[in-house]
Amino acid sequence: MSTSFTMIGGEGPESYRQHSKYQGGLLEAATEKINEAISTKLDIDLTSNLVNIADFGCSTGPNTFRAVQTIIDAVEHKYQQENNLEEIEFQVFFNDSSNNDFNTLFKTLPPARKYFATGVPASFFGRVLPRSSLHVGVSSYSLHFLSKIPKKVKDCDSHAWNKDIHCTGFSKEVVRAYLDQYKIDMESFLTARAQELVSGGLLFLLGSCLPNGVQMSETLNGMMIDCIGSSLNDIAKQGLIDQEKLDTFKLPIYVAYAGEIKQIIEDNVYYTIERFDIISQENEEIPLDPEFLTVSFKVTVGGIVASHFGQHVMEKTFEVVKTKTQEMLPQLANAKPGMQYLIVLKRI
Amino acid sequence: MSTSFTMIGGEGPESYRQHSKYQGGLLEAATEKINEAISTKLDIDLTSNLVNIADFGCSTGPNTFRAVQTIIDAVEHKYQQENNLEEIEFQVFFNDSSNNDFNTLFKTLPPARKYFATGVPASFFGRVLPRSSLHVGVSSYSLHFLSKIPKKVKDCDSHAWNKDIHCTGFSKEVVRAYLDQYKIDMESFLTARAQELVSGGLLFLLGSCLPNGVQMSETLNGMMIDCIGSSLNDIAKQGLIDQEKLDTFKLPIYVAYAGEIKQIIEDNVYYTIERFDIISQENEEIPLDPEFLTVSFKVTVGGIVASHFGQHVMEKTFEVVKTKTQEMLPQLANAKPGMQYLIVLKRI
Repeated sequence: MSTSFTMIGGEGPESYRQHSKYQGGLLEAATEKINEAISTKLDIDLTSNLVNIADFGCSTGPNTFRAVQTIIDAVEHKYQQENNLEEIEFQVFFNDSSNNDFNTLFKTLPPARKYFATGVPASFFGRVLPRSSLHVGVSSYSLHFLSKIPKKVKDCDSHAWNKDIHCTGFSKEVVRAYLDQYKIDMESFLTARAQELVSGGLLFLLGSCLPNGVQMSETLNGMMIDCIGSSLNDIAKQGLIDQEKLDTFKLPIYVAYAGEIKQIIEDNVYYTIERFDIISQENEEIPLDPEFLTVSFKVTVGGIVASHFGQHVMEKTFEVVKTKTQEMLPQLANAKPGMQYLIVLKRI
Repeated sequence: MSTSFTMIGGEGPESYRQHSKYQGGLLEAATEKINEAISTKLDIDLTSNLVNIADFGCSTGPNTFRAVQTIIDAVEHKYQQENNLEEIEFQVFFNDSSNNDFNTLFKTLPPARKYFATGVPASFFGRVLPRSSLHVGVSSYSLHFLSKIPKKVKDCDSHAWNKDIHCTGFSKEVVRAYLDQYKIDMESFLTARAQELVSGGLLFLLGSCLPNGVQMSETLNGMMIDCIGSSLNDIAKQGLIDQEKLDTFKLPIYVAYAGEIKQIIEDNVYYTIERFDIISQENEEIPLDPEFLTVSFKVTVGGIVASHFGQHVMEKTFEVVKTKTQEMLPQLANAKPGMQYLIVLKRI
């Protein structure tokens, strides 16, 4: 099973491109903070007249286009007095795994962009850019994807075996296994970016995290993933998929607590933490509509279900998910709110 | 009509990826000369420990992977004594138009590559990379594609109206119109690359050209394109496509004479010509097999036929092409040999 997590490509009604407004919301809310951080914290040498920007885990847009444009606008604003702005050129590196739909990304690039666009097909848990070549990096809603499923949670004989398809939060052993992998991955990510960033460069991290005391399966996202798991169980009972194959199917997702993220970053010696904002995430922003919710999770989780069980089973599963979501609406309405983070790191 | 010329994508039996051996042959023959040019002519500053390489018009591979590896090997060989080679990193920019199949290119990247791979989706007739950022560029079998069809050749009322689908070489007015566009495009290409290349950097140009006194339609390539044109005429007579639509369908291809290419390059002030080799191209290397020839031209010309007339007409057309190619075999066997060029330019 490929654990490389890729959004559904293309531009159709059931594509990530058409269903990423939720992820874009945080970016919009963060624009002012990004401007401020670039204005007051970015400290780079512009004698080469080139500013390199990268989005790690860009998927197919349009959020990635907004993110990089926000950064470019802020850099231009910052340096408009000091430098001859017309001389400054921007190069943007759109990074995602090599099975991302770069064709769609490239065909939908903003026609009026004033930067050189490039795609970088490689896992961001390793180096993807040359040493000391990057001025500003961003990663949005990508770091809850693990590089792989911890072995233990797939092993039925292990104490940390996970009967669910994701880390619900209720078994300490399972949480420990996921968290261990999350720490390794975050450390790899931060160290790779530290090598790529110039001294004085900035790294923006945006995403979801859990409030203290809240388990993943008590949040709307967790409930929806549980619903996908229970739908797959129904499909297995109907004989469409093998129960054993289902037992080894786990999602490489870990939504961390803010404190866990902070600890990992503080342990990394390459950065100063310039900003660590936790924003409460109101569920009211997400329409409690079974159709909308089903498609939203299909474009993000559907790809990995299809790569494990095939396209047909994936389609069937999400038909069941839709029915179950309808029944779950009262429960979803009472989901505990999650949180979102905006972290600004400066390369020492 | 889109005049952006793109090879058929994917990895299937009828993909450019599977049918680009012919184009790869010249590269193999040129390897020694590329090595020598890099060894004796490349003159770059390696203090940043980064070497940037680009292929302009890369398509889907595998030729582009061989081309950039040849260049990397030669650069490593050149600098192995002077520098700490382990510190040097390579970044490769694979450039093609944004409707190229980058997904296939990225999925088939050599797994053991020792460079940072990036895709650059943009027309190489304009700037695609930052100023003074490129050390070695290559463009192989790309520069006979024009940025657009000259207006005159599409205008039935013009003296330069072209009754054929490409520049056969028999009408002086038509040739003049194509050549004028070719000069504009080559000049744009060379000037854009001059801005991207560092002083002392190299640009390798490989492709086909015509021997003096030989018309395009006397060569095997020209005959095959004429055959596609006459097949489209048959399809029009059958009523499957509109004759008027066919009358405006022209391929944006101009295969220049070596002397024309040389003149354009000499007129450009940014380069010194380090090498200008013309190699006679023996037709014996191309198997005179109707199936092989048909597919070879389908993967290169089929895409533009499909974008003008639709996929169905394209498939029908190449069925006719196959039958006609069978009948044309004696004529093809007597085609006049074409030529290939390897040009090495150094940025002043």
